[in-house]
Amino acid sequence: MSEFSETTVRVRYKETDQMGVVYYGNYFTYFEIGRVEYLRGRGMTYKEMELQDDSYIVVAESRCRHLRPARYDDILRIRTRVSRARRRTLEFAYEIVNDTTGELLATGATVHVVCNKAGRPRALPDKYWKLFASPTDADEDAGEAAHSKEHSRRHSRKPS
Amino acid sequence: MSEFSETTVRVRYKETDQMGVVYYGNYFTYFEIGRVEYLRGRGMTYKEMELQDDSYIVVAESRCRHLRPARYDDILRIRTRVSRARRRTLEFAYEIVNDTTGELLATGATVHVVCNKAGRPRALPDKYWKLFASPTDADEDAGEAAHSKEHSRRHSRKPS
Amino acid sequence: MSEFSETTVRVRYKETDQMGVVYYGNYFTYFEIGRVEYLRGRGMTYKEMELQDDSYIVVAESRCRHLRPARYDDILRIRTRVSRARRRTLEFAYEIVNDTTGELLATGATVHVVCNKAGRPRALPDKYWKLFASPTDADEDAGEAAHSKEHSRRHSRKPS
Amino acid sequence: MSEFSETTVRVRYKETDQMGVVYYGNYFTYFEIGRVEYLRGRGMTYKEMELQDDSYIVVAESRCRHLRPARYDDILRIRTRVSRARRRTLEFAYEIVNDTTGELLATGATVHVVCNKAGRPRALPDKYWKLFASPTDADEDAGEAAHSKEHSRRHSRKPS
Repeated sequence: MSEFSETTVRVRYKETDQMGVVYYGNYFTYFEIGRVEYLRGRGMTYKEMELQDDSYIVVAESRCRHLRPARYDDILRIRTRVSRARRRTLEFAYEIVNDTTGELLATGATVHVVCNKAGRPRALPDKYWKLFASPTDADEDAGEAAHSKEHSRRHSRKPS
Repeated sequence: MSEFSETTVRVRYKETDQMGVVYYGNYFTYFEIGRVEYLRGRGMTYKEMELQDDSYIVVAESRCRHLRPARYDDILRIRTRVSRARRRTLEFAYEIVNDTTGELLATGATVHVVCNKAGRPRALPDKYWKLFASPTDADEDAGEAAHSKEHSRRHSRKPS
Repeated sequence: MSEFSETTVRVRYKETDQMGVVYYGNYFTYFEIGRVEYLRGRGMTYKEMELQDDSYIVVAESRCRHLRPARYDDILRIRTRVSRARRRTLEFAYEIVNDTTGELLATGATVHVVCNKAGRPRALPDKYWKLFASPTDADEDAGEAAHSKEHSRRHSRKPS
Repeated sequence: MSEFSETTVRVRYKETDQMGVVYYGNYFTYFEIGRVEYLRGRGMTYKEMELQDDSYIVVAESRCRHLRPARYDDILRIRTRVSRARRRTLEFAYEIVNDTTGELLATGATVHVVCNKAGRPRALPDKYWKLFASPTDADEDAGEAAHSKEHSRRHSRKPS
């Protein structure tokens, strides 16, 4: 469970709808910004992940709870963390906060599969994996890969 | 549990991203189209619900499972049904199917609160409620209110 | 100067802004739909132009006059024609009409350069060119290619 | 003719299309950001213009020349100035520059009519007008109002 990374955006007129609030589908764009900036904060440029390392973070699930409306010209604080990191799947959790009032406007999550350009699932390259993997995350990942390895690792695990 | 209403859309270039597929947030626009056409199929024009009846169907939750990519120029069949209807909350369920191949591309759901223009929750006007409420839905609705009140309501209800 | 091709779209909630009308930038999405359907009406699938024939119709200029607002749930008639066709550049002209009232809402134009996937200008393949080229258009194109042909055309031109 | 105001945005994944570049219609969103930040830089909050002063800056014309593609994750510098200010109409001119390379990617312009909430043209309130009007602009505006003033200005105009 990583810490939140934070970035802010200002609501664009384009993002509002005739209800006078941000259109619900646009929160998923804010989530995109949140995870890209999360990655950047950890030393990963998503653009390069695609171009240089053939690693696409494809969205498999997305969800949002819309608690209070965001409005035109509001500054939104997007708080993003990785809630689960495995070699082939990543989960991000988000909070959208009105940066002026501190009110929580929305929470959400996305689940991703790492794919190559052709859309085939693949493992995240080591250089990125190292940046994601906290000791706990690495443990979680083990379950996916090799049981024997998992077994030996388990016994050397420090209490958390 | 209502039946699926169906409508189709063709994927716009605007809706793709540089991965060569529909951007994940745009599925929520397809869901919007699905529920508006669902309502129209039942004799409700969402535009009039807002303008004439001060009833706004505000999104409280939204989620999507992205199973297979939709691509530029694909014709998508949007299948929409009401999965739960109460006086103050509505839930819609969606399926997005590639209309040519029949493949299921995405499933999703949205939860809505009926509000007035000021954003205050309100009950859905009778004229709409009658169109939503199948016998089963009406029963489900009973659970929300007070039992005694519900009881009296049931017995005074005119046959629809 | 080709004839207008026509297609209709219904305004989505997503496309409105808090002014209660369609956001001005979204007219360019309607123009996109207009020209794609124009092409389809002439036997060209833009998707295949990209995939099979490495011909991308890149936008070099775009403009719109916004005469009257389009509103949520309006059915818009998009009228599209090719105002100029040459081997390497295409120009489209558009009209957006409220399909119910007949009011003209917007007019616009886009200028395009034919490019390959790498973004290099190229000539439109013959198979497409034939579909664009009315006798007049073909003549116009001649000006780009061969002067002598242009010369003879001038003298055989019928008064317009 | 005012000076350029500048602001930057980072290209979102959402804004790209399958050509791997920013979708042409999205430049008009960048223009929106440019003019809102222009106004803010002059002490005007567009949100308040609408809410407190019933002044909506409605788009009447929009155009863009797309010179070079903007790409995902690029930082774009949006340069905005007022090219003409009158009491009832405003014109903005824009340049979009790749902030890293300095390349000019797009130029454009929008023409606006000041309207009230009902969509009726109105004069810009004094408090805003004062912020727009440089001596030259004020002179230009005079042309709309009084011919004699216009006449004298013409004769005192320096050669350009």
